[in-house]
Order: sequence, then structure tokens, then C-alpha cells
Amino acid sequence: MNDTTSASLNDPAYELDRAYVFHSWSAQAALTPLVIAGGQGSRVWDYDGRSYLDFSSQLVNVNIGHQHPAVTQAIIDQAGTLATVAPSAANLMRGEAAKRIVDRAPARFNKVFFTNGGADAIENAIRLARLHTGRDKVLSSYRSYHGNTGAAIVATGDWRRIPNEFARGHVHFFGPYLYRSEFWATTPEQESERALRHLERVIQSEGPTTIAAVLLESIPGTAGVLVPPPGYLAGVRALCDRYGILLILDEVMAGFGRTGRWFAFEGYDVTPDLIAFAKGVNSGYVPTGGVIISESIANDFETTVFPGGLTYSGHPLAMASIVAALDAMENEGIVANAARIGRDRLAPGLAALQEKHQIIGEVRGEGVFWALELVADQGTRAPLSGVVMGRIKTELLARNLLPFLADNRIHVVPPCVVTDDEVAEALAIYDEVLGLDLLA
Amino acid sequence: MNDTTSASLNDPAYELDRAYVFHSWSAQAALTPLVIAGGQGSRVWDYDGRSYLDFSSQLVNVNIGHQHPAVTQAIIDQAGTLATVAPSAANLMRGEAAKRIVDRAPARFNKVFFTNGGADAIENAIRLARLHTGRDKVLSSYRSYHGNTGAAIVATGDWRRIPNEFARGHVHFFGPYLYRSEFWATTPEQESERALRHLERVIQSEGPTTIAAVLLESIPGTAGVLVPPPGYLAGVRALCDRYGILLILDEVMAGFGRTGRWFAFEGYDVTPDLIAFAKGVNSGYVPTGGVIISESIANDFETTVFPGGLTYSGHPLAMASIVAALDAMENEGIVANAARIGRDRLAPGLAALQEKHQIIGEVRGEGVFWALELVADQGTRAPLSGVVMGRIKTELLARNLLPFLADNRIHVVPPCVVTDDEVAEALAIYDEVLGLDLLA
Ligand SMILES: Cc1ncc(COP(=O)(O)O)c(C=O)c1O
Ligand SMILES: Cc1ncc(COP(=O)(O)O)c(C=O)c1O
Repeated sequence: MNDTTSASLNDPAYELDRAYVFHSWSAQAALTPLVIAGGQGSRVWDYDGRSYLDFSSQLVNVNIGHQHPAVTQAIIDQAGTLATVAPSAANLMRGEAAKRIVDRAPARFNKVFFTNGGADAIENAIRLARLHTGRDKVLSSYRSYHGNTGAAIVATGDWRRIPNEFARGHVHFFGPYLYRSEFWATTPEQESERALRHLERVIQSEGPTTIAAVLLESIPGTAGVLVPPPGYLAGVRALCDRYGILLILDEVMAGFGRTGRWFAFEGYDVTPDLIAFAKGVNSGYVPTGGVIISESIANDFETTVFPGGLTYSGHPLAMASIVAALDAMENEGIVANAARIGRDRLAPGLAALQEKHQIIGEVRGEGVFWALELVADQGTRAPLSGVVMGRIKTELLARNLLPFLADNRIHVVPPCVVTDDEVAEALAIYDEVLGLDLLA
Repeated sequence: MNDTTSASLNDPAYELDRAYVFHSWSAQAALTPLVIAGGQGSRVWDYDGRSYLDFSSQLVNVNIGHQHPAVTQAIIDQAGTLATVAPSAANLMRGEAAKRIVDRAPARFNKVFFTNGGADAIENAIRLARLHTGRDKVLSSYRSYHGNTGAAIVATGDWRRIPNEFARGHVHFFGPYLYRSEFWATTPEQESERALRHLERVIQSEGPTTIAAVLLESIPGTAGVLVPPPGYLAGVRALCDRYGILLILDEVMAGFGRTGRWFAFEGYDVTPDLIAFAKGVNSGYVPTGGVIISESIANDFETTVFPGGLTYSGHPLAMASIVAALDAMENEGIVANAARIGRDRLAPGLAALQEKHQIIGEVRGEGVFWALELVADQGTRAPLSGVVMGRIKTELLARNLLPFLADNRIHVVPPCVVTDDEVAEALAIYDEVLGLDLLA
């Protein structure tokens, strides 16, 4: 991505960033961050007016698109009224936000505990599960990301866990992923069945009475948009019920419109006990997240103290932005647009790219939540190298498309408001770049 | 606090809160939250127009006062430009905020890593210390609060740790607290010396080469504004240096003006290696926090990946509010006001209350950061009971003062912008309430 930022080198935004800002998940010396000054809908731009089609939704959070006027207006109004309030107080926007979230969740859910983001949503979901069951262990998938704080990072399965392994009670298992099956499966049905058998064996071997919860992303996101095969999530629910274990679904990335549904799990015949959310609930316009709590768990804390909390729980600016974002998504049919775009544009469009480009090993997804798995060899499925992925990023940026790349994948994750024309524009750019002689 | 909310019972803000919002650190059934609709300076009000003098600063975060026009305007402007951006991008406000923070810190600090609040600031400070030293253990005080996430809650020393003890590597020691000495000390000098001796014995007994960091609130806040005795913090620094251990100072509550200084530690002849901040940096107008990193630690991650991160690191709304808040605090002499109020108004005013009311066992503090330790008996120092503390809260609220109560203490923690008249008003209310026959 180096050539794209040369224009930024005398930009104070760039200079100040390099001098003073310490960046996430990175070695600092090699960074050449793209400067972003503004945005609208599915586009962002720098201070020189160069604009990009945002097919990353930043960190897959800007579901409603950049600068939705109803959401920015709600923030402006709340900032003018009351920017901050202690969590112990009652504030109208907080109740309105909680009601809207509960109303969209299945009937068993009745309360919302608000946090500042996804990681602390996971922390509090785990806390609730441990306290409700009186058990310690939490089972989660190796192919997962759940956040960077103490318990969330150890619940995480991917490489980011390894330097941070300071919490106890976390056990990892393999989830379904037919393209790179851990179970020698050859069909989706077999992958599902075997992944469930593997999970049950882990549960039995760990001791069911020691396990508080199974924690799963409804659709593992950063790990590659791993759409669960038929019966898998319902099967996990059945295992949890059989062994008296709670099911926490992490809807931080998959929830609030990304799949073309309010919650990703609604497509999979499963109801969890706790739902962690963040990102899409207000498209990240103000940092927020939370846990939607089922009544039987919330009731534990009617007369017993819940031992968790944070200064900005239910922050008024965040709450106002949730209210406006959910209302706008509802009124403007934004979730339905994500479903339509997925079905009518991205599914056929990405399938056509796969037909054409040997480099695409698999296409997975739904709504505006897709991954192209890129391979050096269709037979061995060897992942495309980091060097080539770097070239792809450079070429996409050079064509004014802001991509989301992870490992050997392009995640195709535009805002839910993306238009048919923008999808066509992006598909043409992906097509052109994947057709370059990238291995040269 | 019950009578104050009877007016709120038909208020939709109250009704929605009770129906849908799950509250921090509480049993849910007994809650009767005060409704807060708006605020200005040191006052907040409900929807019926009843107003309160805010001597809590909410959760001791509204240092600049409610609805400071420069800060709300900065949020409004940024909301109109770009509400959210990925942490990997560069954004002007983020660099400007980081520069202002680094400029106020001692010379050894050169970078800022931004988080969403205090807990994840502590998480990342601990992460940096462990990675820099290659050691696991973190020593912190029993009388402390560091946040609700996995590592932060186990670093916390108070009761909130106990149901959440799922992280390893955390060891607790006793800090200085002459009024309730753990060391049979009778003078501040002796308390300091003995607390240091105790800490050194813990370090030796745990094994110095296993210890990454000592983590301390510069002035333990929630634990009772435990102003450190002469030489204590400098002595901790000397111990850290002797044993090759890093010193993390938690300035989440004490920092950015509360003590009448930018950083509380500046009063104690000590420089830490890592500084965790949140609250006062932008008065909580938008959720944010972070770690100020000294150059020798930041340099570790020039070519090595830093394994931490979060979606809303360096969020543009938060960054814009930091820039505006720090500039306004500087230009309007707000930190100096906190120092002056502490020296000229609260120190003598609270001392006079202590003279008058046997119930006040000790007064501690500086700037706008004070605690009145209330006792049932001056001789035994037996803490005032929860029942009586509840009565005090009710009586203060009935007189339109929003107090901060913790255990057997009233924390006197108004915004840094509090005026002489407001202090006089509050002192008169405290005086009146502490003079009631509360034990009847
Ligand atoms: C599924 C999932 N859970 C949790 C998180 C953590 O959220 P945050 O970065 O807001 O802490 C993420 C972030 O990408 C995520 O994708
Ligand atoms: C000293 C200290 N550290 C950390 C925290 C945690 O901050 P937060 O509630 O923003 O997570 C607090 C909160 O009160 C605090 O007082």
C-alpha cells in the first residue's frame, strides 16, 4: 500500500500519526497509514479529495454507511443536550436504545447491558455465563476473534491469543470449515456432523459439569466469513442443552444487518442464551457494544449484585446513535437492501469472478458479508502468499477501492446501504486486479 | 435515595430504564435510578427541571464540567465530518490528540495507544509491560480499582475482583493508609517506610525476575482518595529500578486536572514507565482512554507486532473531544482552578467540617479530589454503617446535591470548573446533613 500514501507525506494528519500514535496489531516502523478525512455512504476520502469506495466498512462496522444524516444528527442533538452521564442514572436514550435492541431479539431476551465495544461485551457475556452456571470453562473455536481484553483475547482462537494467554478456563475446539476441513469431510453435511461430534468429544473430555458456555461467532468473521454448514448451529444448541451449558453467540461483526438479517443466527434455527453485539448496532459512530441477556439469566441478578461495570456503560451519545441507526435501518429498508444485494448482486457477481479467476479457491457469504479465499494452487489449496496479497492491496487501492484483506482472503464487506452501481464498480475492480499477472 | 425518584415513576426515561437496562455492580430489583436529562457546568437536572449540584462529577469523570461548549462543539463538528474510521487509517484529530497528551507527559513518553475507557487502558498497559519484560506477574494494591475486563478486574484489589478471578499472574499487596494502617504505623513517614518495606518483601518473596510491573493508582480513588505519604511513590520507583520492574501508574481517575495538576504523580517526585488514562482526558464526553508509552517500550514494537487492538482505538469523535477538552482546560485555566479550589476552599472548608462533626474521622485530598471518612466512633474508627450512609445519601439528594458515596465515605469530587459559590453551597449542605441526628 506504499505508493498510495506518498501524497500524504507532507500531510499533517499523516505526520502527527507517525510521530505520536501507537497502532493496533502492528509493527510500528513499517506502517504507512492511509489518511481518511471524511466520508459519505460507501465512500471515504482524504484531505486531497481523493476518494475510495469503502468495501471494508472500516473494520466491518459501518453498516449504515458513512455519515448517515439521521445518525449524525442524533449525535449532534445529544451532544447539545447531555454528552455524558453515570451508568447508575437513568437517561431516556439509554432506555430507548435498550428497548429497540430487546424488541429485535428473540422472546427469551429481556435486558441489555451496555459496554464500550465488542471485547467488553464478550467479557460480560462470559461473566454472566460463569455466574449463572457456577462453572468456569468457556469453549470457543480456534478460528475466531473475540476482542483484546483479558478474557476475550484468550477466548479468541487465532494467533492474537498466543502472546496474551493469561486467563484460565478457556478451551478451544475446531469449528466447521469444509474448504480446509479438520475432519476429513467432503460434503457440508458431513462437515457439520463431524464438527458436532468433535465438539461433543471435547465437551465430554473436558467434563460437561465444568463448562459454563460455548462461545461462537454466529458466522466467524475475521477468520474468513465461515458460513456454518446445515445443522451446525442447531446442533451446537442441542449439545449445550444436553449438557446444561449456555450458548453465547458473538454477533459483534455478523449482527445488525450484515447478513441481511438483524441477527446472523436467525438464519440458522438456533436461539442463544446470551448475545454479544457492537459494530453494526450504531455502525461505530460512537464506541459502544453490549450483551443482550435472556430473562432466566437476568433474573439471577434481581437480588444478587452483578459484579461487572464500566464508566461509560450506556453512554448517552452512543445510545442516541443506536436509536437513530436502528430506526433508520428499519425505516429505510437497509437490512433488506443488504439481503437483496447479497442475493442478487454479490452472490452471482462473485461466483462469476470465481469462474473466471483460478486464484479464487472459494467464495463464501451472504448479505454484505463475503470472503474470497485466494489460493496459489486450486489443487493443493495452498494459500496465496502475503507478498502477493500485498500486491493485491496496492492494486485495489490504486483503483480507489478500500479493501478488507485478512490472511489470504479478500473480505467483500461494503456497508449495507451499498448500491447496485457501487457493487458493479467494485466487482469490475476486483476482476481487473485478479486478472493482473500478480505472481510476476 | 428513594424519595427523590418518586416524581420519576411515570417518567418514560425511568420506566424504560427499569424495563430494559441491566445496571453495573448492582442487584437490579432494588434500583431506583435518578433520571438525568441535561446539565451545565457543575449542575445536572431531570426532565421536570429539578436540578442538582453535581459533586460526583458522575463517576469522577466530568472534570471540565457538563456541556462545555467548546467540547460539545468539537463533537458536533466531527460528527458532521467523519464519525468513525478504522484504527489503521490516519486521521488528523487522532494525531492532534496524541500530540497534546504526549506534550503534557514527562520527556520519556513518546506515543499514545488509544482505547475505549479505563479498563482496556489497563489491559494494554499490562500487555506492554509483560511483553517488554518477558515476565508475567503484575503486583497491585488491595485497595484499588482498575476496571472490569479480564486482567483489569483481577488486578483490582477490592471486592469486585473476588467473583471474577479468572486471570493468572496477579499478586496483591497492601498500600499505605495511615488512618487504617496495615503496618502498625503512627506517622506518615513510618507508614511510607513500612509500606515500602512490605512491598519489597512481597517482591522478594514472589521472585523479582518473575515480576513485569507494579501497577498503582497514583492516588487510589474509589478506595478512598488515599493520598500517598511522603516518599512512598518515589520509593516504589526506586524498588522497581532496583529489581528491573516496570512502574505503571493508573491515572484514570486522578489524571487530567483532578488533583490540580495534569497528572497526579507530578506531585510525588516519580516518573512511571507507562501511564493509563481515561475519564478526565475528555471528561467522558465520548468513551475513550489509553496508554501513554515511554520511548524505550514503544521502541520494542518498531519491528515486532504489538498484539493488542480494538475497533474504536482512536475514534474520531473521542479524539476531537480530547483536543477541545485539553485546549479549553489549558486556555481557561481549569487545572489551575482545581488547584486553587482545593487549596483555598475545600482544604479549609472540609477541615472546618471535621472540627465540627465527630462523624468525620479523616479528611484527605487535594484539588477537587477529596474524601470524608465517616466513622461511628472516633476512638475505634469503626466505619459508619451502610444504613446510615444510605440516609446521608437521601438527605444530600433531598437538598439537591448529587453526592459520590463509597463504603463509609463521602467523596467530594466536583468538576474542576466548580466555583467558589458552588463550593460554599455544597459545604453548607454537607454541614447541614452531617449535623442531622442520623443515628436516630
Ligand atoms: C466477532 C468479533 N467479536 C469481538 C470483536 C471485538 O470488538 P472490539 O474491537 O470492539 O473490541 C470483534 C472485532 O472485530 C469481532 O469481529
Ligand atoms: C483508577 C481507575 N482505573 C480504571 C478504571 C476503569 O475505567 P473504566 O470504567 O472506564 O473501564 C476506573 C474507573 O472508575 C478507575 O477509577
